[in-house]
Amino acid sequence: MAENEVYQYSIISALMDGVASHGTPISRVLEHGNHGLGTFRNMVGEMIVIDGTVYQMKSDGTVVLIDNPADTITPFATITRFRATTATQATITSKQDLSALLTRLFPSARNHFLAIRMDGVFKSINVRTAGGQLTPRERLPAVADRQTVHTFRDVKGTIIGFRSPDYIMGINVAGDHLHFIDEERKEGGHILAFETEGDVLVQVAQLSRFHVELPTEDEEFNEAALVKDEKGIAAVEG
Amino acid sequence: MAENEVYQYSIISALMDGVASHGTPISRVLEHGNHGLGTFRNMVGEMIVIDGTVYQMKSDGTVVLIDNPADTITPFATITRFRATTATQATITSKQDLSALLTRLFPSARNHFLAIRMDGVFKSINVRTAGGQLTPRERLPAVADRQTVHTFRDVKGTIIGFRSPDYIMGINVAGDHLHFIDEERKEGGHILAFETEGDVLVQVAQLSRFHVELPTEDEEFNEAALVKDEKGIAAVEG
Repeated sequence: MAENEVYQYSIISALMDGVASHGTPISRVLEHGNHGLGTFRNMVGEMIVIDGTVYQMKSDGTVVLIDNPADTITPFATITRFRATTATQATITSKQDLSALLTRLFPSARNHFLAIRMDGVFKSINVRTAGGQLTPRERLPAVADRQTVHTFRDVKGTIIGFRSPDYIMGINVAGDHLHFIDEERKEGGHILAFETEGDVLVQVAQLSRFHVELPTEDEEFNEAALVKDEKGIAAVEG
Repeated sequence: MAENEVYQYSIISALMDGVASHGTPISRVLEHGNHGLGTFRNMVGEMIVIDGTVYQMKSDGTVVLIDNPADTITPFATITRFRATTATQATITSKQDLSALLTRLFPSARNHFLAIRMDGVFKSINVRTAGGQLTPRERLPAVADRQTVHTFRDVKGTIIGFRSPDYIMGINVAGDHLHFIDEERKEGGHILAFETEGDVLVQVAQLSRFHVELPTEDEEFNEAALVKDEKGIAAVEG
């Protein structure tokens, strides 16, 4: 796939409906990019793809390098071959601040996608990690109810994520969806909030093509109602 | 693009919002397939792509062969490189009947797309054709209010279309979206209803990948609210 296009496997409404027993090998996802996020079979942990390397950030606080992506399954992932078109050193004090900066940098992009990377030192960063389904088809909101929240302090690391347009809600997560991993690749998760120390480097690209691969021969997916639960998605993924 | 994947330019909510002054050359759309439908700049007429050839079906009842696709702009189109995986001779008496047959043929496909082609003799077929916007940004429902309805009788021809899953509403048209052109390429439009004479040939393929190209450098698109109007889309495109 060309640079700066969105590829996603499955849709977020399927994950909401608990469709996570099957999926696609992560190696197939990596064919489409090097910068992304997602989850793993049975929603065990948060996925981050940074510079083409995949990590599984688990609810016990550990981070696992996925060195066998051909043998590891994801039921939902979003990725791009990232090439920043804008890079700026900025003082970003919070998640809200990053959000406002993105809007200032791309004032006409509300109907397009942005791929986002931010490198810096974090005074504190709050992340959550999903521990996984207790039973097949357990819905994401139930899984998220048991999520673990970690706070890391004085840590250097990277945010990887996407901003998606409102109309994509249900297919993917509208708004900003950001995961974090530290420089040592030992701590990370889905970002809830953060506070930085000094300047950070924010790199962004606008994406205008998106590609969706739906699960095939997957009865869970075929049978799911896939009703868009806008508030529910925002609550667990926003 | 590979066979049996959906490619679309722009999203139906943009058309609903009247985003139709600009677009992409139809030759660019044809790079992705040979079977499709859409509209033209300023929503003048209905587009059908049959066996790789593009026709503009206008509200005055005429059908124009688009022999210069590189110089003709579409603000919204959906296309696939169609290769039927199912072909069946059937007695299809109505649009509802075709819909029921598709569900019987593909019972597990409600969360996927279908590309549809039906060849036969029609006792009668009712189509509508949009005459176009009176002013830039005139919304599709207003354009559709002035649409012309034609009834063709005892005509041989082809239906080209797609079935799309519910969750795609707003990006594309959920449900069955079908255009018609007669064998002589002189009559056609967006199908409202039909009645056939004898058996017809129904060819279908299930599609599990979709690709969306968003307009870029198009202020109309960038400024549009793109709020999903589910009932409105069903009313004008269903």
